[in-house]
Parts: sequence; C-alpha cells; structure tokens
Amino acid sequence: MADVYAGRRVLITGGLGFIGSTLAIALVERGAEVTLVDAMLPAYGAQLFNIEPIRNRVRINFSDLRDATGLRHVVRDQQTIFNLAGQSSHLRSMNDPVTDLAINCQSQISLLTCCREVSPAATLVLASTRQVYGRPQRLPVDETHPTVPVDINGIHKLAAESYYRLHSQLYGMRAVILRLTNTYGPRMDLRNVDKGFVGIFLQRALAGKMLAVFGTGEQRRDFNHVDDVVEALLRIGTCEAALGEVFNLGHPRPRSLAEFVRLLQRITDCRYELVPFPKDQLAIDIGDYWGNYDKLRSLTGWEPRIDLEEGLEATVAFARQHADKCLPVSG
Amino acid sequence: MADVYAGRRVLITGGLGFIGSTLAIALVERGAEVTLVDAMLPAYGAQLFNIEPIRNRVRINFSDLRDATGLRHVVRDQQTIFNLAGQSSHLRSMNDPVTDLAINCQSQISLLTCCREVSPAATLVLASTRQVYGRPQRLPVDETHPTVPVDINGIHKLAAESYYRLHSQLYGMRAVILRLTNTYGPRMDLRNVDKGFVGIFLQRALAGKMLAVFGTGEQRRDFNHVDDVVEALLRIGTCEAALGEVFNLGHPRPRSLAEFVRLLQRITDCRYELVPFPKDQLAIDIGDYWGNYDKLRSLTGWEPRIDLEEGLEATVAFARQHADKCLPVSG
Repeated sequence: MADVYAGRRVLITGGLGFIGSTLAIALVERGAEVTLVDAMLPAYGAQLFNIEPIRNRVRINFSDLRDATGLRHVVRDQQTIFNLAGQSSHLRSMNDPVTDLAINCQSQISLLTCCREVSPAATLVLASTRQVYGRPQRLPVDETHPTVPVDINGIHKLAAESYYRLHSQLYGMRAVILRLTNTYGPRMDLRNVDKGFVGIFLQRALAGKMLAVFGTGEQRRDFNHVDDVVEALLRIGTCEAALGEVFNLGHPRPRSLAEFVRLLQRITDCRYELVPFPKDQLAIDIGDYWGNYDKLRSLTGWEPRIDLEEGLEATVAFARQHADKCLPVSG
Repeated sequence: MADVYAGRRVLITGGLGFIGSTLAIALVERGAEVTLVDAMLPAYGAQLFNIEPIRNRVRINFSDLRDATGLRHVVRDQQTIFNLAGQSSHLRSMNDPVTDLAINCQSQISLLTCCREVSPAATLVLASTRQVYGRPQRLPVDETHPTVPVDINGIHKLAAESYYRLHSQLYGMRAVILRLTNTYGPRMDLRNVDKGFVGIFLQRALAGKMLAVFGTGEQRRDFNHVDDVVEALLRIGTCEAALGEVFNLGHPRPRSLAEFVRLLQRITDCRYELVPFPKDQLAIDIGDYWGNYDKLRSLTGWEPRIDLEEGLEATVAFARQHADKCLPVSG
C-alpha cells in the first residue's frame, strides 16, 4: 500500500530547525514533495547541516513569515503545512517581547491569511507548547486544563493557537494543534541553549562542565525524543477526526530533573551539583509537569517509543559525531 | 475629607475616546492632575469635543503607544495609569488582524515595559472586555469562567490581560484588570459604528432609519452606562486588595436585544424589524451573555446605578444636543 504521504505536497515552516528538519527527513523518506521555509534567524537553531541527508530532494525557500508578500507563492498548492517556525526561548521572550510577538503572532496571522486565500483546503498542523498551561493545577495535565501561561512566549503561543482554532471554526479551515513538551534528540540546537534546561544540560555535559540543578531537582517533567514527536506530527497531519482539535504530547514515564541529570552522567560522565533556586527562576518555575496524551493516543494510536536513556544516548552520540556543526565552537 | 484622587497624577491612554474622556472629566472634577494620551486614529472615536468641559485643565499628549520612544516622558512620575486605548471593533479585528495585534498587544507591551522602567510604583488599570470569555458555558459568567475568545479582538485583549498579570506576578507591578461589557452613554462614538450593535442601533434610530434585529432578538446582554463604568474604574484604581486581580463589570438586569430596541423605540420613535440571522454573524454570535460582578461589588461596593431606560434617554439627548459632533454628517 502506498504511503499516505507519498507524492503529497508538504510545506514545513521552520524547516531547517531541529524538529522541522527531522520531520523533513521523515517525509522525504516517505515520498512526499517537501518544501521548507526558514528565515535562518541567528541563534534560532536552523542550519543547512540539519537537512544534509535530503539536501537535493527538497525545495528551500529562505524567507521570513513576518513578510507576507512572498508567502503566497510558497503556500500555493500545498496540501499539508506543518508549522514549526517560531521563537521558543522563554528567556528571549521576556527580554524582547515585541520580537516574540512579531514572530509568534504576526507571522501566524500572515500564514493563516495567506492559506485562506491561496490554499484554503490545505491541512495545517501547528506545533504549540505545554507552556500555554502555565503552572499545573492538576496532574497529569490534559487538554481541558486551564491555560494560564506564565511567560510572554506562552501568552503568544496561546494566541497563535487561538488563531488556528478561529480559522477552523469560522472559515472551515483544516487546522489542528499539537502541544509539545520537552523535545530532545539529534539536531537539537546545542549552540544556543536559551530554549530550556535540556539544551543547557546537554551542552554543558558535552563540554565537560559542571551542571547546576536548581533546588532539590525533584521537579518532574516529560520528555519526548524528536522521532516520537515527528511520528505524532505525521499521524495527526492525516487524521480527519483531529481537525479543529488540540492534542497534548507526553511520555508515560515522567522523570525528575535529578534523574535526567543522573542519566546524563551515566552517558557522558558529567558532574552536577544542587544549587539553591535563583529568585528570578523560582518566580517562573512551574513545578511538576507531565501531560496526559490519551486524546492523541485514542485517535491515532500514537505512543512514545523511545525511552529517555536510549534517546539521550543517541542525542549525545550524534552531537559528538557532528561536534563541528552541533556544539559551540569553544566547546 | 480630601478626595483620594485630589492632586493625584493620573494618565489616561485613549483619553480622548468615549470612556477615556468621561473618566478624565470625572477625575478633573475630583482634583486630579490629568494627562491624556491619544493617537487620534481615524474612526476610533477620539475627538477634542469629548473633553471640551475640561480642555484647559488637562495636559494632552498626541502620540501612539506603538511608538515607544516618546512614551517614557509621558509615563514618568504618573501615579495612576488608566489604560483605555485600544482597537475595540470586532469587525475591524477580523478584517485587519495585524493592525489589531499592533494596537492591542504591541502597544501594551510598550506601555508596560516603559512603566516598569520609569514608573514601577504606578497603579495600572487595564480596561479589558467580556469578549475574552467567548461563548458563555454558564450564566452568569464569573471571572473563573474559561477564556475561549471567538474573535481576533478577544484573542488580543486576552493576551494584553496576560501581560498585566505577568508584570504583576513577576515584577511586582501594581496592575488590575476590569472586564467591561456593553458600555453606552454620552460621548459614545456614533459616527463609526463598527464597535457593536449598541452603536449601530443608536445611530440608525437617531437617523430615523429601520433597525434590523437578528433572529428573534431574545439574546440577552448586560449594559453599563459609562458613568457607572467610570465609577468602577475610579474605585478599582485605589483599591489595594484588587491588585493583581481581574474583575467583571455587569448589570443586575440583563435585557434582550428586543427589549433594548423597544426601549429605544419608546425614546426615539424608531422602527425595527426581525430579520433572519446572517450566516457570518451566526458563526460569531455568542448567544446570551451576562456577567457576575460580585467580586467587584464585595471588594469596592460598586453597583451600577443607572438603569438602561434612563441611560438611553440621556445618551439620546446628548447626541441630539451635539448632533454636529456626535452623529454622522449624513445623519
């Protein structure tokens, strides 16, 4: 039986970034006609290296979604659009909220407006984030949990989600939203590690530096290997019953930050220490988080297949093998 | 006893608009030192006529909040900032979401960033809207009701609220949010009536034109006279216990649209007809809405004092008396 993506015209925004490029490789393998859009913004994680295995089998359009003019020529005739573009650094959103607004909100408005005009029948998948929930009021967090984001990035991602919901409800567009949790794996950006603690820990461990775990390290999180995330994106992108809906990702085995670091120690021989919670970090810490992904599982059969230990080993091996592309120059 | 606002340095953004100007007049009467900021954007409702009674007793700064540069000189040394500036037309937000984003989100980021730098001790009152709730899931709607906005304007107002909540939680800023429902009264913009059905009905009634009520006209809403809204703003602006919180306005007597129109008929002798719900309107209609304002009442003692009939009479009388300033040229 032919693959459902074989011959399908697929656009990936943020296509040269960590998740976008991994998705692109999977889609090319499945026979899709893949176009990538990327603004190549410095320090966002995009690089040509990420798509080396498929470099001659995809079209690349270097452009910024904030600039709506050229967009329609890229969007026209696409059948599925995976939207991975965005600013995802909490820290950067707090330091420069106006840029975060332009990249995470204005760009999405441009894209949706453009799709509505030239590709109204395309299926749109938005990669959103667990940050829209803010501090969990109950665990595990399912999709009915209140959305009270505790940072600028979460506020803007929630607004972006709402645009998709609205375009689905009002204009009948085929949109679906996936809320990602901590994604890690080969090709993740270990040069610019302002996107969360996983990158920071990995970068420092690979550089032989001391890791600092805030507090007792007991906060638990769920981690998804990028291959599992890509599988979720691929499944949801062809699921008619998912249209107009929002879905969590998650992992059956949440881990504490201390466990995470001990796993990393086993793999890289790194050292770590527990340090008191810095005041500014405590103010924005959400405590424990893990998501309930029953909704996605029951609709698509998706389950994470990769355990954290195995996934971290692969991540470390890839980063070491491609140190010149994946690690800081000084590292 | 001296009025709590006597001698107080108060800034009102959107100060020449409908609610902003009415608030300014009340504050000047109470002895405050009032500065108004307004961008005078065409069709947003601001005009110098609105502040005629206090023209020489306020400072006016014509500027756009989207332009952050000059803002710090206006914000510096202010003690209370009432934030009434914004785009509030549902229709316009759907037709031009990017402008709505800039005016309702980017401007608020600019203002908050600026306040944090030069006036971190100022009390900030944001005028938000019931639109953040979307379609009511239960009635009356209290502040714990889920926020699922059904238009672009509601999405952006919700984001703006979140900025205020965040600046309160993370930076200790003194911010409070008031969610307004349908506000009407003297000085409301009856020239540009894309801000909701109240303006449309009033404008047409005063021009002797037929009013069209969609469906059966049974949808109920709550209406606040602008003087009651101003009283709520004034009370919440000096209430220490309100900081960091969000409050509904509302009215003890919700009215159906048909009742509203019959009241207007009694006052203006206008004609109306029931027409089938236009499809595009039905898609965004939220059905019944009325708010629970117990939280505000129990904290500040606020209650609406003006009944709809009395309030509409005053509104019509004012508009007729100042027809050259308040009504369309053709009307």
